[in-house]
Amino acid sequence: MSRALQLAERGLYTTHPNPRVGCVVVQAGQVVGEGAHLRAGEAHAEVYALRQAGQAAQGATAYVTLEPCSHFGRTPPCADALVAAGVKRVVVAMRDPNPLVSGRGIQRLEAQGVQVDVGVLEAQARALNPGFIRRMETGQPYVRVKLAMSLDGRTAMHSGESQWITGSAARADVQRWRARSSAVITGIGSLLQDNPQMTVRDSALAEEGFLPQPLRVLLDSNLRVPLDALWLHAQGERLVVCQQADAVKRAQLEALGVRVEVLPGQAGRIELAALWSFLVEAYQVNEVLVEAGAELAGACMAAEQVDELIVYLAPVLLGSEARPLLQWPLQSMAQARRLQLLDQRFFDQDIRLIYQPITRKE
Amino acid sequence: MSRALQLAERGLYTTHPNPRVGCVVVQAGQVVGEGAHLRAGEAHAEVYALRQAGQAAQGATAYVTLEPCSHFGRTPPCADALVAAGVKRVVVAMRDPNPLVSGRGIQRLEAQGVQVDVGVLEAQARALNPGFIRRMETGQPYVRVKLAMSLDGRTAMHSGESQWITGSAARADVQRWRARSSAVITGIGSLLQDNPQMTVRDSALAEEGFLPQPLRVLLDSNLRVPLDALWLHAQGERLVVCQQADAVKRAQLEALGVRVEVLPGQAGRIELAALWSFLVEAYQVNEVLVEAGAELAGACMAAEQVDELIVYLAPVLLGSEARPLLQWPLQSMAQARRLQLLDQRFFDQDIRLIYQPITRKE
Repeated sequence: MSRALQLAERGLYTTHPNPRVGCVVVQAGQVVGEGAHLRAGEAHAEVYALRQAGQAAQGATAYVTLEPCSHFGRTPPCADALVAAGVKRVVVAMRDPNPLVSGRGIQRLEAQGVQVDVGVLEAQARALNPGFIRRMETGQPYVRVKLAMSLDGRTAMHSGESQWITGSAARADVQRWRARSSAVITGIGSLLQDNPQMTVRDSALAEEGFLPQPLRVLLDSNLRVPLDALWLHAQGERLVVCQQADAVKRAQLEALGVRVEVLPGQAGRIELAALWSFLVEAYQVNEVLVEAGAELAGACMAAEQVDELIVYLAPVLLGSEARPLLQWPLQSMAQARRLQLLDQRFFDQDIRLIYQPITRKE
Repeated sequence: MSRALQLAERGLYTTHPNPRVGCVVVQAGQVVGEGAHLRAGEAHAEVYALRQAGQAAQGATAYVTLEPCSHFGRTPPCADALVAAGVKRVVVAMRDPNPLVSGRGIQRLEAQGVQVDVGVLEAQARALNPGFIRRMETGQPYVRVKLAMSLDGRTAMHSGESQWITGSAARADVQRWRARSSAVITGIGSLLQDNPQMTVRDSALAEEGFLPQPLRVLLDSNLRVPLDALWLHAQGERLVVCQQADAVKRAQLEALGVRVEVLPGQAGRIELAALWSFLVEAYQVNEVLVEAGAELAGACMAAEQVDELIVYLAPVLLGSEARPLLQWPLQSMAQARRLQLLDQRFFDQDIRLIYQPITRKE
């Protein structure tokens, strides 16, 4: 199963909107087939592994990181393929998280005489697909908020000046978070300040053969985005979400190939729950990366809409006039939000910290 | 020499105002004597090691982490003791940092026919005594500023409320920084807010046999300290530094055994250079720990008076209304202060980061 999880990782940047899945077929203690799902519309992991195994699949055991599918989608059901290949035992890391079909693949296998064991390395399998699982279980995406800050918790000078807070290694790492996300979200404030592209441009990723361009989303309540913004002209799918769309501006944006969507909100702020629902329905987004300024990041925290906070801590002090990490006024320690540290890693002198907000008990 | 450095560490909490020094005597590849300097007024490391070696010191090699002394202080010169014991070679990690006597111990040894080698593990030897070396070389102490902050770089709520930002392991670690310091400095703002004692109270240190109480220093320009402040009544030597001393308040403080000293300053802020000079002259301070709020810590940074910034980063967010890490208004990225990361360590979910400010090139 460890090997199957490794294989599944191959789809990290490319399976959207599908989950990352790996499969290993073992015959008499020997690996006879390996497969990973790489792209939606292409074959599932089980199919690749069975193809490689060929006749050796007869009487073999298959290890799959996710319950084999039982339905005809873009590809025929993998449960049937396993049975047809003569596999006699299937070890499944985790059930299908979609409550409507969960367990059906297992039933289909068992009904045809295959022994099924479920729950091996389940935590690791769940960690492969936090967004897909979240979407299937709740209809919401998995939300990461990425921030780069100084040691004193500042993201830019008061003027907005913010060049070179983190180093090149940390910035390259950000590209990987973008690449694995279904959507990369930014706010109009950051766009007006920094004129970013928000695309995936990492040369290392390109060398590995991946240069996915996730959906880029701009939250721009009053359609203030300038028509010459780099964000509008960089390659890839673009969505501007607003609260009201001036017809002329909308037409100008649409002429650039940009989709414009009106969503509810108040006080110049798009309602996050409506945003997630729209992104899930229209784009089947799994993992979402919010790369924004203190306003939007603070709003996400305040609304308890953050699953992971990814903070790059740079070895620099910007002083007390500089911009805060999060625009989020709290008054007492009772309101302070506790976090769970999930991961820590160095990128030269920058430190990447990944935290999970601890949900307050109501 | 590695062993001698280890031995020197034994004096970490106790040698003030002397340096931490270790010595190993080796005869024919065997360690025959070990010693460490533990307390001012007690024997130097070389004396302990020679005593243990006895006759075996004849023709032996001595490894010493600091150049043996050549002068009669509280104890006779160690250079003479080494010669008298018949040591034929002395390996010295570093010269005496006092420019007035540096090299004299080596000369004294060589003049009496002892072979001397200097510079083995010198960097490690220097790291043992940053404060002593700084004081000898420049007449200034080595200044550490300790801060505990939230992930968003805040030290307390706007109201000042700040309980339980860091956990017990991090707080115990702070006790060790206090214990190794010659002086622990705090500001009147923190004292009025938190009513701290600033003493060394660590039970682990007590079990190890160390419970030193460094000089505690309060910066209180206008003698605002309340007579019932815990700081005034906790055990150990206390110094209140002010810009003007009301005679009655001064007498009240002195009646509590507290020394009151008037030093120059402006705008309610004691001049740091004058403070260091006074502390070095009056107390021979080596390492100084500043445990203060954003005002004093910011003033130390702004004045470029910080050798190490020790930051405990707690897994909590306090929001944008909370108090800044440093009260230090900077306007542009050109003024931002770059830091060099020296060390990183976990204390449960808290992270201790030690940085050295990179001096700006003028």
